[in-house]
Amino acid sequence: MRIALINPNTTASMTRKMASAAVAVAAPSSEIVAITAATGPASIEGYYDEALAVPGLLAELRKSEAAGADAAIIGCFDDTGLDAARAMAGIPVLGLCESALSLASLVAKRITIVTTDLRARVPVEELVGRYGMAGKVRVRATGSPVLALEDPRSPAVSRLKAEIALALEADHAEAIVLGCAGMADLAQSLLQEFGVPVIDGVGAAVKQAEALVTLRLTTSKRGAYSFPAPKAFRGYPAGQHG
Amino acid sequence: MRIALINPNTTASMTRKMASAAVAVAAPSSEIVAITAATGPASIEGYYDEALAVPGLLAELRKSEAAGADAAIIGCFDDTGLDAARAMAGIPVLGLCESALSLASLVAKRITIVTTDLRARVPVEELVGRYGMAGKVRVRATGSPVLALEDPRSPAVSRLKAEIALALEADHAEAIVLGCAGMADLAQSLLQEFGVPVIDGVGAAVKQAEALVTLRLTTSKRGAYSFPAPKAFRGYPAGQHG
Amino acid sequence: MRIALINPNTTASMTRKMASAAVAVAAPSSEIVAITAATGPASIEGYYDEALAVPGLLAELRKSEAAGADAAIIGCFDDTGLDAARAMAGIPVLGLCESALSLASLVAKRITIVTTDLRARVPVEELVGRYGMAGKVRVRATGSPVLALEDPRSPAVSRLKAEIALALEADHAEAIVLGCAGMADLAQSLLQEFGVPVIDGVGAAVKQAEALVTLRLTTSKRGAYSFPAPKAFRGYPAGQHG
Amino acid sequence: MRIALINPNTTASMTRKMASAAVAVAAPSSEIVAITAATGPASIEGYYDEALAVPGLLAELRKSEAAGADAAIIGCFDDTGLDAARAMAGIPVLGLCESALSLASLVAKRITIVTTDLRARVPVEELVGRYGMAGKVRVRATGSPVLALEDPRSPAVSRLKAEIALALEADHAEAIVLGCAGMADLAQSLLQEFGVPVIDGVGAAVKQAEALVTLRLTTSKRGAYSFPAPKAFRGYPAGQHG
Amino acid sequence: MRIALINPNTTASMTRKMASAAVAVAAPSSEIVAITAATGPASIEGYYDEALAVPGLLAELRKSEAAGADAAIIGCFDDTGLDAARAMAGIPVLGLCESALSLASLVAKRITIVTTDLRARVPVEELVGRYGMAGKVRVRATGSPVLALEDPRSPAVSRLKAEIALALEADHAEAIVLGCAGMADLAQSLLQEFGVPVIDGVGAAVKQAEALVTLRLTTSKRGAYSFPAPKAFRGYPAGQHG
Amino acid sequence: MRIALINPNTTASMTRKMASAAVAVAAPSSEIVAITAATGPASIEGYYDEALAVPGLLAELRKSEAAGADAAIIGCFDDTGLDAARAMAGIPVLGLCESALSLASLVAKRITIVTTDLRARVPVEELVGRYGMAGKVRVRATGSPVLALEDPRSPAVSRLKAEIALALEADHAEAIVLGCAGMADLAQSLLQEFGVPVIDGVGAAVKQAEALVTLRLTTSKRGAYSFPAPKAFRGYPAGQHG
Repeated sequence: MRIALINPNTTASMTRKMASAAVAVAAPSSEIVAITAATGPASIEGYYDEALAVPGLLAELRKSEAAGADAAIIGCFDDTGLDAARAMAGIPVLGLCESALSLASLVAKRITIVTTDLRARVPVEELVGRYGMAGKVRVRATGSPVLALEDPRSPAVSRLKAEIALALEADHAEAIVLGCAGMADLAQSLLQEFGVPVIDGVGAAVKQAEALVTLRLTTSKRGAYSFPAPKAFRGYPAGQHG
Repeated sequence: MRIALINPNTTASMTRKMASAAVAVAAPSSEIVAITAATGPASIEGYYDEALAVPGLLAELRKSEAAGADAAIIGCFDDTGLDAARAMAGIPVLGLCESALSLASLVAKRITIVTTDLRARVPVEELVGRYGMAGKVRVRATGSPVLALEDPRSPAVSRLKAEIALALEADHAEAIVLGCAGMADLAQSLLQEFGVPVIDGVGAAVKQAEALVTLRLTTSKRGAYSFPAPKAFRGYPAGQHG
Repeated sequence: MRIALINPNTTASMTRKMASAAVAVAAPSSEIVAITAATGPASIEGYYDEALAVPGLLAELRKSEAAGADAAIIGCFDDTGLDAARAMAGIPVLGLCESALSLASLVAKRITIVTTDLRARVPVEELVGRYGMAGKVRVRATGSPVLALEDPRSPAVSRLKAEIALALEADHAEAIVLGCAGMADLAQSLLQEFGVPVIDGVGAAVKQAEALVTLRLTTSKRGAYSFPAPKAFRGYPAGQHG
Repeated sequence: MRIALINPNTTASMTRKMASAAVAVAAPSSEIVAITAATGPASIEGYYDEALAVPGLLAELRKSEAAGADAAIIGCFDDTGLDAARAMAGIPVLGLCESALSLASLVAKRITIVTTDLRARVPVEELVGRYGMAGKVRVRATGSPVLALEDPRSPAVSRLKAEIALALEADHAEAIVLGCAGMADLAQSLLQEFGVPVIDGVGAAVKQAEALVTLRLTTSKRGAYSFPAPKAFRGYPAGQHG
Repeated sequence: MRIALINPNTTASMTRKMASAAVAVAAPSSEIVAITAATGPASIEGYYDEALAVPGLLAELRKSEAAGADAAIIGCFDDTGLDAARAMAGIPVLGLCESALSLASLVAKRITIVTTDLRARVPVEELVGRYGMAGKVRVRATGSPVLALEDPRSPAVSRLKAEIALALEADHAEAIVLGCAGMADLAQSLLQEFGVPVIDGVGAAVKQAEALVTLRLTTSKRGAYSFPAPKAFRGYPAGQHG
Repeated sequence: MRIALINPNTTASMTRKMASAAVAVAAPSSEIVAITAATGPASIEGYYDEALAVPGLLAELRKSEAAGADAAIIGCFDDTGLDAARAMAGIPVLGLCESALSLASLVAKRITIVTTDLRARVPVEELVGRYGMAGKVRVRATGSPVLALEDPRSPAVSRLKAEIALALEADHAEAIVLGCAGMADLAQSLLQEFGVPVIDGVGAAVKQAEALVTLRLTTSKRGAYSFPAPKAFRGYPAGQHG
C-alpha cells in the first residue's frame, strides 16, 4: 500500500517532520511517499493561504494517483482543499483535522484543539462545526506563527503547553488535538507530560488511510464527490486540469 | 462608487448577463465594472471547480482594489473564495449566495434555492448551514449544467420552473432564490409567473455592496479576516501574492 | 422612495436621533418619514414592553402604508412586532436587529451585540438564535436603562465602551452591533475608537429597505406572511384592524 | 388553588369548550376561572392575530392576579404573549403548546402537532424550535380556520383526522398534539380512534399549573422575567400598565 | 393513584429522603411506594454505575407494575434506564432530570444544574442536549460524591451553595436544578436562601406522574417505545425478562 | 495485538459471522478473539434489549482485558454500553455505529443507515444525533427482525436491498452504512451491486481499534471516562464489579 503525504505548506522541513511521524505509525506494508507541493504558501495560516495552497496540492495529488498511490493525505490541519481533492481523485483522500477528530472522539468526550496563528482559530472552529462537533470540541490558538515550530529557540512550544494546561482546566478537556501539521513530532512527549490523549493529525490520517484501503472503501462517486464534469480550465498548464 | 463584479466562471457571456443584471439595479452613482477572470474553469459546478477558480478570482480582486474599486462581488453562487477574498482585500467583498439569502430572509420564512448541476447541491446545502439557515432553506438542483443556461434551446429553464413549482408545493417555499449566477436574467419574469419573491444573487450583492460602502463598513481586520501574514508563495507569478 | 421609520418607543427625542441617523445614510432619492408611535411604552426593555408596543406600531404602519410609504422600519432593536407587521403590510418591513446582523455577517465572523437593560439580554439572544447566528454572535448588556442614553450625564456611554472592550478581548469579537436604537448616533465614533466595524441597526435597516424596494421585492404573501384572515377584533378602535 | 384560564381568542364558545376540558382534569381542590378577553381577535391565526391579542390578555391576567389567582393559563396554542405575561405576573403562567410538548415528550420520541389555518404552521414550527424540539416534532396544518371547529357541520374534524393518519404514516409519529385550543374536546375520542397518545394543551397546562403551585415554584424574577421597569405607557387606559 | 418511586441507587437512606420529598408534594389521593433496588451500585456516578443499575431497576419496575402501580419514577437524576423502562412498561415512567427540566423551563429562561461527582457532569450535559436544552441549561459539578450528601458533616452542601452562587453570577442562571436525587431535601431552603426557583427532580417527577395518569396518557406503544419483541434472555433469572 | 470482539447479542451464529468479517480485514499481526456474551438477549432490538445486554457485555470486557486484550469491540450496531465500557476499561473500546460513521464520513457527504427492526430506528437516529451527524445521515429500518438475517430463506436481505435503493433515490445517499452487526457478511456484495461505498461496522471497528493501539491512544481517564469510583454493587456476583 502506497500513501502519498502531500504537504501544501511549501516548506520542506515541515514535510520531513510529517513524513517521520507518518512512517513511525504506518503498517509494515505501507509505504509513505512524502511530497512538498511545488506551488503555494510557505505556511498556511487562515483563509487566504488555504485558498492559494489548493491548486498546487491538487496537481501533486493528480501526479500521485497517476503514479499508483492507493490513498493520499493532505498535510495541513485546516483540511485545505479536501473536498476538491476527493471530487478529483479516484483514491481516498484524508485530512488531518477530520482524521484527528475522528480518533479523538473514540477516546474522549471533551476535546480541545490547540492551533497556532490567531488567523487559524475561526477557520478551525468552522471545520469543527462542519464535522458536527461544536458541542464537544473547543479551539485555542497560541498566537505563534506556524513556522516558529521549525525553530527550536522560539517560544512556540512553551506557548502550546500553556494553552494545553488552560484547556484541561477551563475547557474540562479530556484529550488534546494538535492543530498544526508542524506539531506532528510533539504528540508522544505531550501525552507523557499531561497524562491525557494527545492526537496528532498526521498519524491519525495514516491509520484512516490504511483503514479505507484495507476495507476497499474509496470516495463515493455519486453526488457531491462525483468526478468533475469535463470543461475548459483557462490559464492552467495544459493537461493539468479538466 | 465603483463596484467590481468579478466572474470566476471564465465564460464571458455569463459575465455580460450578470453585468446587465447588476447595472439594472445599481444606484445612479454606482459604476459596475464587470470582469471575467483570466484563470479558472469555464463554469463552476462542485468543489473541484470552486477550488480552481479561486486564484484567478483573487488576482482580479487585487487588481480591482488597486484600480480603486470601493467594493467587489464574486460572481458565482457558491461563494467560492469569499473568505479568502475578504482576508486579502481592504474593501468589502460580497458573495451571491450570502447576499441573496440575507435579503430573502427579510421577505419570507421558508425559502428554496434552485441550483443547476447535481454536484452543486451539497456544497450549497453546506453554505446554507454555514449561514445558519438550515432550518428554513431547502436546496434543489435541476440537473442541467450551468452553461446550458447560456443556450436558449436547452431545457434548463423549463427544468428550473418545474423545480420552483415543486418547491412551492412540497417545501412550503414562500420565496425562491436562484442558485446560479447564470440565472440572473430570469428573476423578474419568474416573480411574475409564480407570484412569490424570486431573488437573484447578483442584484442582491450589488445592493449589499452599496449598503456597506455607504455605511462606511468594511471587512474587520481583527481575527479571521486579518490581512494575510507576509510570506513566500512558491510558483505564483512574482508580486501576485504575498 | 419613501421609508417610514416608526419608533415604537414613545419617546420623541429617540425618534429624532434615529431619524438623523437614517437621513445621514439614505440615498438622495429616499425620503425618511420618522414617526413616534402614539401608543406604547416610553422605552422597550424586555418582553412586557415589547408586547405592549406592538398595537401602536401596527397602527402607525397601517397609516404609513396608506399614505404611500414604500417600506417601513421598526425603530427598536428587539424587532418587536416584526412578524406581525410583515403579515399585515403589503410593503417590506425591516427590523433593526435583523438588518444589523445581516450586514455585520458580511464583514466579520465573530460579532458581539451590546444592549442596555439586563431584561433585554435574553430576548436578544433569542433573536440571534432565531436568525441562525447563535454560533457566531454573543450578547452583552450594560445594565443601563434605554433612556439613560438620552441623558448626556449618565454613565450609559462609558459602560457601553467598557462592554465593547470586553467583547473584543473575551469574545474574540471582530465587529460590534449596537443593541439599542438609542445608540444610533454613536456608531461612527465607536468605529474610530475601537478600530473594528460598529454597526447601528437604523442605518442598516435603511439600506436594506432601499435594497428591497429597488429590487422590487416585498414580503411574500404565501404561507407565514399571508395577509391576515378577515375577522372581528373586539376592543380596538373601529376600522383600525381586521 | 385558583387557576385563571384566559382565552385571548375573543370567542366565548371556545372559552366554554376549554373550560370544560380544564375542569375535567383539574384536581378536586382546583378552581378553574375561565375568562374571555375583552380585547382582541375572534380567533388567532398567525403572527398578526397573535400580536393584537396580547394587550387584552395581559389586562385580564393583571385582573386575575389581583383577584387572587394562583396561576394562569393562556388559552391559545401559539403561546401568544407568554413571555410578556411571565414578566408581568408574580404567579406562574402556562402556555398550551409548551405544556403539551412537555408532557408529550414524556410518552413519545416522535411527535406531530396538527394545527388549523395554514398561517399558523410556521409560527408553531418556530415555537417547536424555541422549545428545543425541532429534532422530534413535526407540524401539520389542516387548512381549516380555527372557528370552523366551532361548527359541527364543517369538515374541520375530518381534515384533522386525515392529517393524523398522515402523521402516523409519513412522520413516524408516536403521539399527536392537538395544535389549537378549539380542539380541546377531541383528545379522548382521537386517542381511542388512533391508539396513540393524543395530547390537548388545555389539560396539559392545567396539570402543569397545579404542579408549579404545589411545588411552590413561580416565575424567576431574576433576568429575562424580571418585573417590568416602571415607565410611562402612552395611549393605554390609566392604571392598566406600568 | 399509586406511584412507584424506584431508587436504583441501592442505598436505603437515599430512598427514604426521596420518599419524604415525594410524599410532601403528592396529591392527597396519591400513594407513594418507595423501593430500593435489590441489585446495583450503592450510588450512581457516571456511565458505568448507570449501566449496572438498570437491570435491578427494571426488575423492580416489572414487579411494581404487576402489583398495580399507575406510574413509576426512576429515582436517579441521570435518567438511567428511562428509555428501556418506558419500552418495557405499560404505565408511564418518569425520570428526575427530564421532569425537573420540564418544570424549570416553565419558570426561567436560563437554568443551571448542579450535580455532584465530576464523572456525572458530561452525562448530564448529554441529557440536556438530548432534551433539546443545550442553549439554555448549563451543568456544574461540586466534586463531592453522591453519598457525601448522606453525611451531615461533609462539605457537600456548602460546595453546592458555592456552585449555585457561581451559577447566578457567571451563567446568568435564573433558576437552579438540583442534579442529584440525594439533594431532594434541600430545595425549599435553597430557594429561600438564593431567591430563585430551585427545582428538585423528585417533586417534579411526582407531579408529572400525576399529570399523565390524570390525563390518561401513557407511553406510546408505536415506534421507539413498542413493547420489547419476545426473545430469549440468557443468564437472567427465569421469568424475569422476555 | 489482540482485539476482543464481544457480541452482546447472545447468539453464537451471529458472533461467527462477525468474527469472519473481522478476520477478513484485520492486520496480519492482529488476533481477533470473538466472544458471545453469557448473559443477555438473543438479539438487540431497541432500548430494552440494549439495557439488558450491558452487564453481560461488561463482564466479558473485564475478562478480556484481564486476559491481555489490547482493545475491544462491542458487536452491536446500537453502541450498547459503549460509554460504560470505556469508563470501566483501561483499553480502547469501539462501537460499530460510531466506527462505521467515522469512516463513512471520509468517503461521502450524505449517508443512509439501514437497520432492521422498527424499534431500532429512533435509537439509531439518537446515536446519529449524539455523534453530530444529524445533518448528513438518515436512518431507515427494514422491519425485519435481527435474527431473520441468520435465516437464508427470510426476506430480510431483499428488504435491505429495497431500502438501499430508496435511500439512493429519496435521501440522495452517497454511501450506505449497514445498521446491524448481523449484516457484516453483506458489505462487499452490496457495494458491487449498488456501486456506492457500503460500510459494515465490524470491519470499521477493527481498523479503528488497530489505529488506536498503534498510535498508543487509549480512553482518557480524565472526566467522563474516569475509572468508576470504588463502591458496593449489590446483587452482582462477588468480584464481578466495583
